Amino acid sequence: MSLESVDSYLAEMRSQHLASLMDLLRIPSVSADEERRDDIETCAAWLKEHLEEIGAEHVQLLRTGGNPVVYGDWLHAHEGAPTVLVYGHYDVQPAEPLELWDSPPFEPSIRNDRIYARGVSDNKGQLYLYLKAFEAFLATRNSLPLNVKFLLEGEEELRADHLLQLVTEQSALLAADVAAVSDAGFFEADVPGLTTGLRGMAALNFSLRTANTDLHSGGFGGTVPNALHAMAALVSGLHSPEDGTVLVDGFYDDVKPISASLRDAWALLPFDPANYTSDIGVSVLFGESGYSPLERLWARPTLEVCGLWGGYQGAGVKTIVPCEAHAKISCRLVPDQDPYRVLDLVRKHLMQNVPPGARLTFDYELPGCYPVVTPTDSPALDSALSALRVVYGKEPVIFRNGASVPVVEIIQRVLKLESVLLGFSCPDESFHAPNEFMRLENFDKGPRTIARWWEDLGSR
Amino acid sequence: MSLESVDSYLAEMRSQHLASLMDLLRIPSVSADEERRDDIETCAAWLKEHLEEIGAEHVQLLRTGGNPVVYGDWLHAHEGAPTVLVYGHYDVQPAEPLELWDSPPFEPSIRNDRIYARGVSDNKGQLYLYLKAFEAFLATRNSLPLNVKFLLEGEEELRADHLLQLVTEQSALLAADVAAVSDAGFFEADVPGLTTGLRGMAALNFSLRTANTDLHSGGFGGTVPNALHAMAALVSGLHSPEDGTVLVDGFYDDVKPISASLRDAWALLPFDPANYTSDIGVSVLFGESGYSPLERLWARPTLEVCGLWGGYQGAGVKTIVPCEAHAKISCRLVPDQDPYRVLDLVRKHLMQNVPPGARLTFDYELPGCYPVVTPTDSPALDSALSALRVVYGKEPVIFRNGASVPVVEIIQRVLKLESVLLGFSCPDESFHAPNEFMRLENFDKGPRTIARWWEDLGSR
Repeated sequence: MSLESVDSYLAEMRSQHLASLMDLLRIPSVSADEERRDDIETCAAWLKEHLEEIGAEHVQLLRTGGNPVVYGDWLHAHEGAPTVLVYGHYDVQPAEPLELWDSPPFEPSIRNDRIYARGVSDNKGQLYLYLKAFEAFLATRNSLPLNVKFLLEGEEELRADHLLQLVTEQSALLAADVAAVSDAGFFEADVPGLTTGLRGMAALNFSLRTANTDLHSGGFGGTVPNALHAMAALVSGLHSPEDGTVLVDGFYDDVKPISASLRDAWALLPFDPANYTSDIGVSVLFGESGYSPLERLWARPTLEVCGLWGGYQGAGVKTIVPCEAHAKISCRLVPDQDPYRVLDLVRKHLMQNVPPGARLTFDYELPGCYPVVTPTDSPALDSALSALRVVYGKEPVIFRNGASVPVVEIIQRVLKLESVLLGFSCPDESFHAPNEFMRLENFDKGPRTIARWWEDLGSR
Repeated sequence: MSLESVDSYLAEMRSQHLASLMDLLRIPSVSADEERRDDIETCAAWLKEHLEEIGAEHVQLLRTGGNPVVYGDWLHAHEGAPTVLVYGHYDVQPAEPLELWDSPPFEPSIRNDRIYARGVSDNKGQLYLYLKAFEAFLATRNSLPLNVKFLLEGEEELRADHLLQLVTEQSALLAADVAAVSDAGFFEADVPGLTTGLRGMAALNFSLRTANTDLHSGGFGGTVPNALHAMAALVSGLHSPEDGTVLVDGFYDDVKPISASLRDAWALLPFDPANYTSDIGVSVLFGESGYSPLERLWARPTLEVCGLWGGYQGAGVKTIVPCEAHAKISCRLVPDQDPYRVLDLVRKHLMQNVPPGARLTFDYELPGCYPVVTPTDSPALDSALSALRVVYGKEPVIFRNGASVPVVEIIQRVLKLESVLLGFSCPDESFHAPNEFMRLENFDKGPRTIARWWEDLGSR
């Protein structure tokens, strides 16, 4: 069947759709902010109503230990048609620092063919593109080429445990043939593509203590241990100074070597180190020798100290021997690392290397999520690549992402589903930062791409 | 001449003197607090008036670039009598945290034969003992055994540069034969003694930067330098891990070896490591091998990182690669180290060891003060030791202090005077901390000791 009518419908409805997206973006659904609980509920209710309006059925809020998940489906496709589970999240990152926004984060503004608003690229705008593709089929054909289930959650920016529990409990309701994860994007703004791997994450916080109280450096300096010296020694022992290789025993044991074919494929990607570092003011790339930047980012694990502090931080000087020091570590993990095992190894390393006179305590830990890779040669993936190729007129690429999207691994492990990470955000769109935006080009082309993908999937 | 009448006068006037000290202690003369400028002026005015009342002449406030210095003298001693320059400071440390005080810091309270108040031990109560010895002579004899000049400053807890300038400019007014520095105390509460050495001080703050902004650890982790890793490496390279020896090139070049006789003398002091560490919760003494704790404290320099921070310090975890890290270093110096040269060496070491990808900046520096030693066998010192021996009925000791009292070196360098550090505070009296106190025993015996010392000095 031709997609002409779908395309026409999307073109005709463009301003109404834009206006309706603006409404969604105006709701400040910041999951990290307890004060925004009402906004979270408002946002979930908005999506529920919208799903009903565009023709979804069984629309409901699924309650979790935290923010509600919005569910809706349409299951009347022709016999033998596959079912796609569409994932998105309606919660957004905090907008602070507000003074760095050129227009208010929750008052969407269109400038230079871009929509500026918190959450437009991550992820409300992205999930909205799926709603519009869905709507366009039903509005023009009163039917869809495949069965669709929507799973729109409200804690992606916060935690994954509630979602894991819900997916586990509702595995029958969520059963499908393939998942479409909207929380993804292009390799570069002008290079469409699909993500097929994400790193996992694990984190822990720890402290060292050398005395009951900070000590006067005149009365004690030279005779007692200094918690910051101990912390510096402990932290500096975590990495080789030459190239940052992690020195925790066993850290790399479960890391899968990068195949020659992957290395060759990644070497062909249009990655420009100068461009990569130009905006961030980094003078040299730094990382494990023997690996390209993309290999380090996608297929090598990291251990980063993401916070460290102790002693006096005020103006001038305070002549003390500090008695305590604190550090936060977060690791990015790659197949086949296990976050629990990695945390065990890090804890063991720290315990075995505590400098004399210091006492180690563990304050917090988060076995965040497992790393995941998705197929690079499946029919569903090939079909999505074709759709991108047709709509964008460019050859799409297959790549990975060094960050973590826990739902992909949860979908794979619990629902046994392949995820296709078809999203339309671009790396420069300032998600998690001020002046987040989405390109209008992708607002227009996204639903058309999704429609082509679904049409193709449904006809196989 | 007998000191019976002086002693009797002090005994008779005890409650009036205590009440008047309470008045002095009630003035919250915190030099670090800009809001307390009026209180500083009130305190200086109180001392000026008090000096006049007890018979001092030429009483005046000497203006500096900061808080005023109170000056007064009495120069009518018999021909050939020496002149003593009495140093004290009327400014006090901040009293915070207030909730840890058992009685309010500026409402003096007598409990268990102790006066509790901010500044009673450091240094208002100490300088007051000199005022009372001075008063007792004039009240009972209408004369003093020697000439006396008072130099009472208001920025000891803040900075030394204004005092240095004043002493330099007023060197004629302040000319004397010996200085009596009241900002000192006993070796232990039950071991009277005289301090004959103080460490110097130098400090600097520096920062490392690796990027313009904190970077997402998913998007950049593994490919870019981490400012906290760089800082940990740089800081851990400042000391040997074995015993904390400072690894800055040339740091020990100017350090005077400890003579065998000093080592022997210090080894005889009643120093108990278990007692030294019992209250502070330090599990092991830690410091340069080959030196006893007292030797490390008094005759070996230190380099302490007194503050260090970077990245995220909030709850939980933030998956960033931090772009900046900050550190504060303060050094305690010993003869013949020069604070300016030490700062040069530290800066050079840091510059030469900046890890790849990090940029170093120096944010602040304070060439605090020079180390100083005073004679251990002078007539003035011997005379003060005799006075302590007679009044306390114990053998006093000669010792050093690992802290810094810049005025001693200023007096030595600018006025070419020997200082005798005769003070009556005890190490356990919580100066710079909540519940600062002075023992009433020393309130009573202090002026008697000073009177005996002056009587002896004047009769030589």
